[in-house]
Amino acid sequence: MKLLIINGPNLNLLGKRETSIYGSVTFEAFLTQLHLKYPEDKITYFQSNCEGEIINQLHQQAKEVDGVVLNAGAYTHTSLAIADAIKAIDTPVVEVHISNVHKREQVRHHSFLSSVCCGVILGFGLDSYRLAIEALKGLKF
Amino acid sequence: MKLLIINGPNLNLLGKRETSIYGSVTFEAFLTQLHLKYPEDKITYFQSNCEGEIINQLHQQAKEVDGVVLNAGAYTHTSLAIADAIKAIDTPVVEVHISNVHKREQVRHHSFLSSVCCGVILGFGLDSYRLAIEALKGLKF
Amino acid sequence: MKLLIINGPNLNLLGKRETSIYGSVTFEAFLTQLHLKYPEDKITYFQSNCEGEIINQLHQQAKEVDGVVLNAGAYTHTSLAIADAIKAIDTPVVEVHISNVHKREQVRHHSFLSSVCCGVILGFGLDSYRLAIEALKGLKF
Amino acid sequence: MKLLIINGPNLNLLGKRETSIYGSVTFEAFLTQLHLKYPEDKITYFQSNCEGEIINQLHQQAKEVDGVVLNAGAYTHTSLAIADAIKAIDTPVVEVHISNVHKREQVRHHSFLSSVCCGVILGFGLDSYRLAIEALKGLKF
Amino acid sequence: MKLLIINGPNLNLLGKRETSIYGSVTFEAFLTQLHLKYPEDKITYFQSNCEGEIINQLHQQAKEVDGVVLNAGAYTHTSLAIADAIKAIDTPVVEVHISNVHKREQVRHHSFLSSVCCGVILGFGLDSYRLAIEALKGLKF
Amino acid sequence: MKLLIINGPNLNLLGKRETSIYGSVTFEAFLTQLHLKYPEDKITYFQSNCEGEIINQLHQQAKEVDGVVLNAGAYTHTSLAIADAIKAIDTPVVEVHISNVHKREQVRHHSFLSSVCCGVILGFGLDSYRLAIEALKGLKF
Amino acid sequence: MKLLIINGPNLNLLGKRETSIYGSVTFEAFLTQLHLKYPEDKITYFQSNCEGEIINQLHQQAKEVDGVVLNAGAYTHTSLAIADAIKAIDTPVVEVHISNVHKREQVRHHSFLSSVCCGVILGFGLDSYRLAIEALKGLKF
Amino acid sequence: MKLLIINGPNLNLLGKRETSIYGSVTFEAFLTQLHLKYPEDKITYFQSNCEGEIINQLHQQAKEVDGVVLNAGAYTHTSLAIADAIKAIDTPVVEVHISNVHKREQVRHHSFLSSVCCGVILGFGLDSYRLAIEALKGLKF
Amino acid sequence: MKLLIINGPNLNLLGKRETSIYGSVTFEAFLTQLHLKYPEDKITYFQSNCEGEIINQLHQQAKEVDGVVLNAGAYTHTSLAIADAIKAIDTPVVEVHISNVHKREQVRHHSFLSSVCCGVILGFGLDSYRLAIEALKGLKF
Amino acid sequence: MKLLIINGPNLNLLGKRETSIYGSVTFEAFLTQLHLKYPEDKITYFQSNCEGEIINQLHQQAKEVDGVVLNAGAYTHTSLAIADAIKAIDTPVVEVHISNVHKREQVRHHSFLSSVCCGVILGFGLDSYRLAIEALKGLKF
Amino acid sequence: MKLLIINGPNLNLLGKRETSIYGSVTFEAFLTQLHLKYPEDKITYFQSNCEGEIINQLHQQAKEVDGVVLNAGAYTHTSLAIADAIKAIDTPVVEVHISNVHKREQVRHHSFLSSVCCGVILGFGLDSYRLAIEALKGLKF
Amino acid sequence: MKLLIINGPNLNLLGKRETSIYGSVTFEAFLTQLHLKYPEDKITYFQSNCEGEIINQLHQQAKEVDGVVLNAGAYTHTSLAIADAIKAIDTPVVEVHISNVHKREQVRHHSFLSSVCCGVILGFGLDSYRLAIEALKGLKF
Repeated sequence: MKLLIINGPNLNLLGKRETSIYGSVTFEAFLTQLHLKYPEDKITYFQSNCEGEIINQLHQQAKEVDGVVLNAGAYTHTSLAIADAIKAIDTPVVEVHISNVHKREQVRHHSFLSSVCCGVILGFGLDSYRLAIEALKGLKF
Repeated sequence: MKLLIINGPNLNLLGKRETSIYGSVTFEAFLTQLHLKYPEDKITYFQSNCEGEIINQLHQQAKEVDGVVLNAGAYTHTSLAIADAIKAIDTPVVEVHISNVHKREQVRHHSFLSSVCCGVILGFGLDSYRLAIEALKGLKF
Repeated sequence: MKLLIINGPNLNLLGKRETSIYGSVTFEAFLTQLHLKYPEDKITYFQSNCEGEIINQLHQQAKEVDGVVLNAGAYTHTSLAIADAIKAIDTPVVEVHISNVHKREQVRHHSFLSSVCCGVILGFGLDSYRLAIEALKGLKF
Repeated sequence: MKLLIINGPNLNLLGKRETSIYGSVTFEAFLTQLHLKYPEDKITYFQSNCEGEIINQLHQQAKEVDGVVLNAGAYTHTSLAIADAIKAIDTPVVEVHISNVHKREQVRHHSFLSSVCCGVILGFGLDSYRLAIEALKGLKF
Repeated sequence: MKLLIINGPNLNLLGKRETSIYGSVTFEAFLTQLHLKYPEDKITYFQSNCEGEIINQLHQQAKEVDGVVLNAGAYTHTSLAIADAIKAIDTPVVEVHISNVHKREQVRHHSFLSSVCCGVILGFGLDSYRLAIEALKGLKF
Repeated sequence: MKLLIINGPNLNLLGKRETSIYGSVTFEAFLTQLHLKYPEDKITYFQSNCEGEIINQLHQQAKEVDGVVLNAGAYTHTSLAIADAIKAIDTPVVEVHISNVHKREQVRHHSFLSSVCCGVILGFGLDSYRLAIEALKGLKF
Repeated sequence: MKLLIINGPNLNLLGKRETSIYGSVTFEAFLTQLHLKYPEDKITYFQSNCEGEIINQLHQQAKEVDGVVLNAGAYTHTSLAIADAIKAIDTPVVEVHISNVHKREQVRHHSFLSSVCCGVILGFGLDSYRLAIEALKGLKF
Repeated sequence: MKLLIINGPNLNLLGKRETSIYGSVTFEAFLTQLHLKYPEDKITYFQSNCEGEIINQLHQQAKEVDGVVLNAGAYTHTSLAIADAIKAIDTPVVEVHISNVHKREQVRHHSFLSSVCCGVILGFGLDSYRLAIEALKGLKF
Repeated sequence: MKLLIINGPNLNLLGKRETSIYGSVTFEAFLTQLHLKYPEDKITYFQSNCEGEIINQLHQQAKEVDGVVLNAGAYTHTSLAIADAIKAIDTPVVEVHISNVHKREQVRHHSFLSSVCCGVILGFGLDSYRLAIEALKGLKF
Repeated sequence: MKLLIINGPNLNLLGKRETSIYGSVTFEAFLTQLHLKYPEDKITYFQSNCEGEIINQLHQQAKEVDGVVLNAGAYTHTSLAIADAIKAIDTPVVEVHISNVHKREQVRHHSFLSSVCCGVILGFGLDSYRLAIEALKGLKF
Repeated sequence: MKLLIINGPNLNLLGKRETSIYGSVTFEAFLTQLHLKYPEDKITYFQSNCEGEIINQLHQQAKEVDGVVLNAGAYTHTSLAIADAIKAIDTPVVEVHISNVHKREQVRHHSFLSSVCCGVILGFGLDSYRLAIEALKGLKF
Repeated sequence: MKLLIINGPNLNLLGKRETSIYGSVTFEAFLTQLHLKYPEDKITYFQSNCEGEIINQLHQQAKEVDGVVLNAGAYTHTSLAIADAIKAIDTPVVEVHISNVHKREQVRHHSFLSSVCCGVILGFGLDSYRLAIEALKGLKF
């Protein structure tokens, strides 16, 4: 399977800042683990702090892959434009969050993306990404 | 691992009614598949249409198992009492939904349970249950 | 016709408490009148104060009858689970209320059930049940 | 019994437009059926698209009849003035709707009239009018 | 005096779970203290996690006693049906809470029961129950 | 001074219905009193149950008079169009109400007209009309 | 093409009142310009301050024309009944406003009509009517 | 008649500040006019910027007079305690405002006092006070 | 024990006004009863209609006593400043109300004080004060 | 005339994705038609998925042209910053939408841009752009 | 420059209570520092727990000084009357807060005063007062 | 001290557009003044109309400086992502606004940034930036 993982704003700081919340593993190190665990799959990675670049990536890369794992960070809660981009493409997109956003502030309880993604996985730390990959594989049954 | 799957109201009808939405596999048949897939784990199952019985089950069984997979159906959106029961026990509980509730009516967008569960998985059909088991195994790392 | 009348919480007190509001006729006495008025029909009756038991009854009995007359009492305004049960069965369900709920407190103005029932009849005292039976007969035209 | 049926805005189009929703029977044809079914009763009929004329009719005709069957159409949801007119007269008024308004848009879920009518009947097609007549007869017990 | 204490969902765990919040005294042990303090009174106790069973108990036992002390737990905030049951009986009911619910989440700030109970006592730990008994005795003046 | 009094929907029933609330004096009788009290003024009167006719009257008559006393009844709370008509004319309009609308239902607490009238007088029974005439005279100072 | 322009309440005052906002051209003068600009089209015009008459006109005239240009004035924001009338006919209706209603009070930001019209044009002064005619012609492509 | 006029916070500045809004007449000068106009009445005056002192005054003076004219200034919109004081006394209280508060900010559109006063007069400048006196005299009829 | 009872606005009228609601016992008479019932305790009393004076009293007296019984009257629902004063002192404060405020208007259902007091007792008439004293004694266990 | 058309996020997919909604004409092809239709005008085009780039373009290009046609896509509903940019420039901007956004989800019913644009045209498919050009020409009268 | 610092309710406790939040410096000690830092300026100080006295002070002292630094404490969020007092005087007023009120409860996020003060400074501890003085000096440029 | 000033969308137009509101000084000219006033400090400046670039800058530059002065313009009110970036870094950030945003539209009264910045300064024109520098220096005490 070809898979694309997209991380949104501030997720470039994973493992570097706020490690008491997000842990001390950088996403690059975690990605290496994923590549080892799924050697037969082609997993590419993109991160940006810009809403428009995430949309661009969804337009350009999504049709090349079998599924997208998307952690849009704070844009989850404010970006109708990313939701429109997901709706415009055929590739299945899974929404993931590292933390359980429902344990956090009110503004993070609503997601513009949930209703246009095929499913949502949240709260399992970095393992949320692995579960999303499993979920995309499950869709192929 | 010892695991408990709890299904809430109307989920006894799975595979029997509204099959265009929920598919034609009964939960009993699906459970057999799970047992085959995870032979080394002890997976027990409980279903009830009564809010109080689900609370009873969480009190009595939860401490005997390593994790709970809970699809509380409509009680997800109305039961503060089940949320209290989850908060009162130490066993990790994963909230699952077969359908993507965010594509349905407004009242199903809010969950009383999300903020007291360790995580949420929704939208992947019956595969949501398998992913929840994977997630509980992931917590053991 | 086979018909099932289901009464929800506190309606076992009809004719015994708050008689100034609900009148002094017990539901059992009223049921006898209905049997006399519709001798050719088979009208069965079920009452419970438990949300889950009403759901169980809808699952088990509804397919045996041609129509259900449901006065869910206070659950009308709080139970998404009963609404799901009604949606899951094919038998037509008529929502009834003895009093005009729109003359009472704000919380009783919204019903979870109205949008999944075929119709609503309210405000005519116990006669609301007779009208519901008439309505179910009218559906057969 | 003397009865008055009042239909509000757009209901003059019944049986002529949107027949897939409202059926192809004109109200005039249906009225003939009612006259046949209730030969001993005097049933008169009034329709207007103007809020003020419905109020005039309630003032002038209501005291001449034993009951009013009122389908105020969209004014149900916007007219406090018709509600005031109903409150000002002693004749019992039954609110009816052809369709189940609770299955339609949010704005149609609130009625200004329900709390001043003696009861409400909705969702049974044109049969809602017959049931309202039955209900008014029931009030005489 | 004959008094009935009713505890709602999750209160069977008192003294066993979340002891840092609710203390380590079980309700059974506390009840023994109450019996010693009020030897001339007959104090009975009922606990259930089921909304319907609490309603049943109010219907059946309330008329046998001079007052009810009710801690409905989470149902306080979601059950209109228990409120209806309290309204339907003549026995005075005092609403109690162990913790100060106004220091907790927003959803616990509204009670369906307060407006139908004779009074409310909250925030004094288990002593809230003793104060409720004192209050019921005070009503006899 | 030339003055125009406009009464809106249901105010033709004044003194005839709901006399316990509105008193038993008809508006016509009260008008005679006003004519006697203000013999040097020309006071004309218009009543309609139709929103559009009130607008027409404001357009046509308002420029002929020195001031308008308007009791728009229930349209006070629903008619933006009457508010627009008042805004479009230069003649001062005083909003009056017989009863204290703030003691009545929530929907009557908001007025579309208050912000476009020069002032508001409410709660003094029919005397509110006399005070409005006094107020219009006061504007001439 | 046969076209019908309908103007709602207070628009009979165009060019006569509030000329600083709406300009000093009367609608009749503007209509002459439209007739000159579109000599091959039959453009009829109707204005009323009565909600019910606008509904009547939509019922009776709409089927005779190829398109309707509707400026419902204040009824835009309060009339569900006109919305129902538009939905009931097949003729395309374009909603127009002379001023940019989004620069005005909050109450004018919501339109009952937008979702049942084929499109909306607002803010271009009287030119909005010409653009609506152009839009209706565009629909014929 | 004995009358008491109470002015609330900031009204001591009348005629001294913001004269473009409130005019350049001080309240003391205006009071002299009132005394001249109503020589047979005893009109006393009290002003305070303190909510509690206004309550004290209502308790102590109100029973000595036949009516109170109250302009509570900003406390109109925030003081439930003054409302309680008015409710606790038998003397009729008329709420007045110099400006038309409905033309001002949203927060000034709601009054805690209106529902406990006998009536409201607003928008006529200082003449509002004279009209309130007239209204109190009218209550004696 | 040293105890301070503080009564807020309008409570100086207890037993003198609105006796049908609050009873005909003055607070002074009731206080005498309390002194007799608790001869070993020193109970002082303060009443004011001024928000600021209640704050002053809490600052100055609270540290001299073992507990405060506070009925802040209408300030309960509007005063964030009193809440801040309670939070700033260490002495436990019990919020009491004579009537069951949840049976009264909506605005009295929210209390600024509940979340900063140790507990709340309401609805038992003047006996609420005695229960609050009992509660403060209970805190000493 | 010099005109600038700006398209916002996802509009680069026009004619390529979701063709059942948006049609199968690419914007580039449509632009060619516009150039043919308006040979004397200079129409330039800019598209971006980035909010900030749209702002940059408005700053830099707007002063070079006589008018801007702006379809900001999803940013219409979330971008206060683009609204600020429009307010900061003198060039008239017309807001356009291809679909009737009022027939879509609630979140698309509010526009940050409408109140700062000179006008709005929506619901006529790609023809909306042509009408906007007509509207800008109309402003030159 | 002549400056007036006004502190509202509970700020007399600064440095004496809740020192973990507000620090252990009393305002009197801090004031001495300010006098040392700005020897050429005349800085006077006023504190009161009474809303009305703060208004009095603004009326009487404000015209004697070149600027006011106001920390109205909890009245910031509840007092429209203080806002009116600020609006009525010409002296510039700077709103300050010691803590960052936006990190605290919801009710402290809205200020009645911000829109009538010239500016706001919050979150810098006691240094907020010094910054306000600097700001007032800056206004003189 | 090393300081970074970040300006958000549209602030590149300062001194060039809307000079009646924002003054005619460009930010570059103002920056020169700041450099002269604080010669011992290293003050760098960054402006962007792109949300993502502001986040990038906060990530990359913030750790190099002792404090950040941030005027995020309209993103203040819509960007949760910038708030997250501020929370993720240790450098203190001061939120500033040139105008008093509380005197402007409702949407500008809420800031996503205030609760994650150390403090807020607004309403003093360009002097707000100087005060923010003073505030950051004050934090070093």
